Amino acid sequence: MTPSTRHVVIVGGGFAGLNAAKVLGNKAGIRVTLVDRHNHHLFQPLLYQVAMAALSPADIAAPIRHILAKYDNITVLQDEVTSIDYGERQIVARQCALSYDYLLLACGARHAYFGHNEWEECAPGLKTIEQATEIRRRVLTAFEAAERTTNAAEQRRQLTFVIVGGGPTGVELAGAIGEMSRYTLVRDFRRISPKLARIILVEAGPRILPAFSTKMAGEATRNLEHLGVQVWTGSPVTGLDRQGVTIGRERLQAATILWAAGVQAESLGGQEGVATDRLGRIVVKPDLSLAGHQEVFVAGDQACFSHGGKPPLPGLAPVAIQQGRAIAANILREAAGASRRPFHYNDKGQLAAIGRSKAIVERGRLRFGGFFAWLTWLMVHIYYLVGFENRMAVIMRWAWSFFNCKRGARLIVSKEWRFYPSRNTKEREEP
Amino acid sequence: MTPSTRHVVIVGGGFAGLNAAKVLGNKAGIRVTLVDRHNHHLFQPLLYQVAMAALSPADIAAPIRHILAKYDNITVLQDEVTSIDYGERQIVARQCALSYDYLLLACGARHAYFGHNEWEECAPGLKTIEQATEIRRRVLTAFEAAERTTNAAEQRRQLTFVIVGGGPTGVELAGAIGEMSRYTLVRDFRRISPKLARIILVEAGPRILPAFSTKMAGEATRNLEHLGVQVWTGSPVTGLDRQGVTIGRERLQAATILWAAGVQAESLGGQEGVATDRLGRIVVKPDLSLAGHQEVFVAGDQACFSHGGKPPLPGLAPVAIQQGRAIAANILREAAGASRRPFHYNDKGQLAAIGRSKAIVERGRLRFGGFFAWLTWLMVHIYYLVGFENRMAVIMRWAWSFFNCKRGARLIVSKEWRFYPSRNTKEREEP
Repeated sequence: MTPSTRHVVIVGGGFAGLNAAKVLGNKAGIRVTLVDRHNHHLFQPLLYQVAMAALSPADIAAPIRHILAKYDNITVLQDEVTSIDYGERQIVARQCALSYDYLLLACGARHAYFGHNEWEECAPGLKTIEQATEIRRRVLTAFEAAERTTNAAEQRRQLTFVIVGGGPTGVELAGAIGEMSRYTLVRDFRRISPKLARIILVEAGPRILPAFSTKMAGEATRNLEHLGVQVWTGSPVTGLDRQGVTIGRERLQAATILWAAGVQAESLGGQEGVATDRLGRIVVKPDLSLAGHQEVFVAGDQACFSHGGKPPLPGLAPVAIQQGRAIAANILREAAGASRRPFHYNDKGQLAAIGRSKAIVERGRLRFGGFFAWLTWLMVHIYYLVGFENRMAVIMRWAWSFFNCKRGARLIVSKEWRFYPSRNTKEREEP
Repeated sequence: MTPSTRHVVIVGGGFAGLNAAKVLGNKAGIRVTLVDRHNHHLFQPLLYQVAMAALSPADIAAPIRHILAKYDNITVLQDEVTSIDYGERQIVARQCALSYDYLLLACGARHAYFGHNEWEECAPGLKTIEQATEIRRRVLTAFEAAERTTNAAEQRRQLTFVIVGGGPTGVELAGAIGEMSRYTLVRDFRRISPKLARIILVEAGPRILPAFSTKMAGEATRNLEHLGVQVWTGSPVTGLDRQGVTIGRERLQAATILWAAGVQAESLGGQEGVATDRLGRIVVKPDLSLAGHQEVFVAGDQACFSHGGKPPLPGLAPVAIQQGRAIAANILREAAGASRRPFHYNDKGQLAAIGRSKAIVERGRLRFGGFFAWLTWLMVHIYYLVGFENRMAVIMRWAWSFFNCKRGARLIVSKEWRFYPSRNTKEREEP
């Protein structure tokens, strides 16, 4: 390596970080270290399918170091970054510290409870494999508990599922639970009819899917209702506990509550003096760099970027992918003595799936729903999924479940692995 | 249902319980309730492949209620049985109580530390999905930690893997770690060479695989050594903690210790007065029933059965399958007014896989090893795997990894799903 080698540190192996790393991979004069607290890249658009027992975690995740193995100039470290010293150009993680010439922050977003973090225990959100597995455990356990109990009120509570938040994630979760109760589980129980499950999608705003057109949001609502989902708009959640939710003055007894109502950007220590928007996203310049620190870039869900005057770009995979690539291209340009170019987003449109064979698609003036929209959704997701093996596995599982309504991953996995609880460990959890 | 319907309660949905249930399914005059604390049947012979990141949990497990959905006379309950009242013919579980006409105990076995239960925290065993995921987490995390550290001694400790117990599970785990470090991970790291991993299979007895012939055990040892595994026989573990193991007077620094040294039968409350052997298995009569309670049967790993004078049958899947079916057949015979038949085991032989393309097979005088043994191992396991979809998934993953040495499920999944730790929850675990 020459003395003029530039060290690029990338924090986060999501869509933005991974795509930036690939552009920088095996380029002369560049050395990359990618740090992520997980060992895997996660294809978040399909995470709800893991939560709904249709896919296994490994189907939509791959080890970051394996994806980048062919690039000799990239080192991958599993570690959690705790702070950044912009002046010293150094990041500090739990187990190591790294100096950088360029820094790319691509830490993504987490779900947010807007001042009610204690709600998380009762209403998990969906951002990580661990959370998807927890949601799967809760949904499947509710059906098991309903089958076991002889108390009618408790059975009704166990069979009530509330999804808070009418964005794409909430719609996809509600559709999948509807699908599961109407089709997948229908023959498997003796004492209950899974069809009687009440699935309620609760949205504070006047309608679901505000990022879509009114027409397509209406079509999504009809599709959801067809799967037995009740859509309650204008219904802000004011209280939430283990027994159920409070919506305005109304009380709903529900054993399973899922949170899809909001996100906030991940934040790292050392962000004092950095401008952020109300979702905690770092406001960036037209080249996605930080004001005052042109060697620091921010991309993906962590960045607040807007084309002059327009609203900021949403937290979508295509935005993150394009931003990651654009930043890497600018680093290469600068290394070659050329000047940076501003980022321009090429709008790919947006999609949402509803159940097993319906979806809605919008791209500019092109708007359609139903089965062909679902096929489009299917092909787009398989195309973007990382890794040939994952693609094959997902195609096979989908084909299988499309024709017989089955779900291949209906496992309730406990959080505790020990047989012999010792002094230091909690009692094994009740099933 | 007629008043003369007999209620058969089966405790445990493993090989014995599930096969008994299938024989009793949709039979007139019979009603079955199967109780298991997990919602899934687990194909334990392939569990080590989940621990070694080659398969996903859902590939080798399927919901019990789904497997038995077509039998209208079978109810499945997810619950944990806590005691049995043989006199009242009743079982008590955490959430319900059931009266029975016939009871089949098929609760299987757990790993055992023979008086050192505190060792479990440092050396997990391999009996459940949860434990397999924990082992996977520890093995993959050790490689990550070795890549991160700059301390040579710590790196060596992180790259030392000790497997305690030279039975088939220990051999399969050691072979898989050898395979992983020599082939799968070899290109993915920059600062360490996974090939330098020390993998030590520790056995207290004079040789590994005591249930196999000396010749085949020798072949297995050579295969393991070819994968870089050191086989230490005559090496009883005398101490074990988070830093390593003590073998006699020798001290071995190792970050990852896996336990495959022993099992004991599951036991339920109310077993006072029931004869058990030193492994906690219930001694049964020739028809697999309990002395003094001919309406109670025991099968699989929980039963101690021997053909007059010979050693008790081992804890193998074919034993459990045949016992479950034989018990169900006797219940049907009795319902039809005929008399019971004694159980006779049809020996299917035994197999063990070593790495990606070697195995040993013994069936009576037929003994062979190498690639054809591995093909035999492959076909037998696919044949017995429950469910067409699982079979397809496993075949595909194996074919894929056979040709390119990859492992599809290299995910490190944390035990904690929360973002916002509240008062009641532990701090998020360090990676």
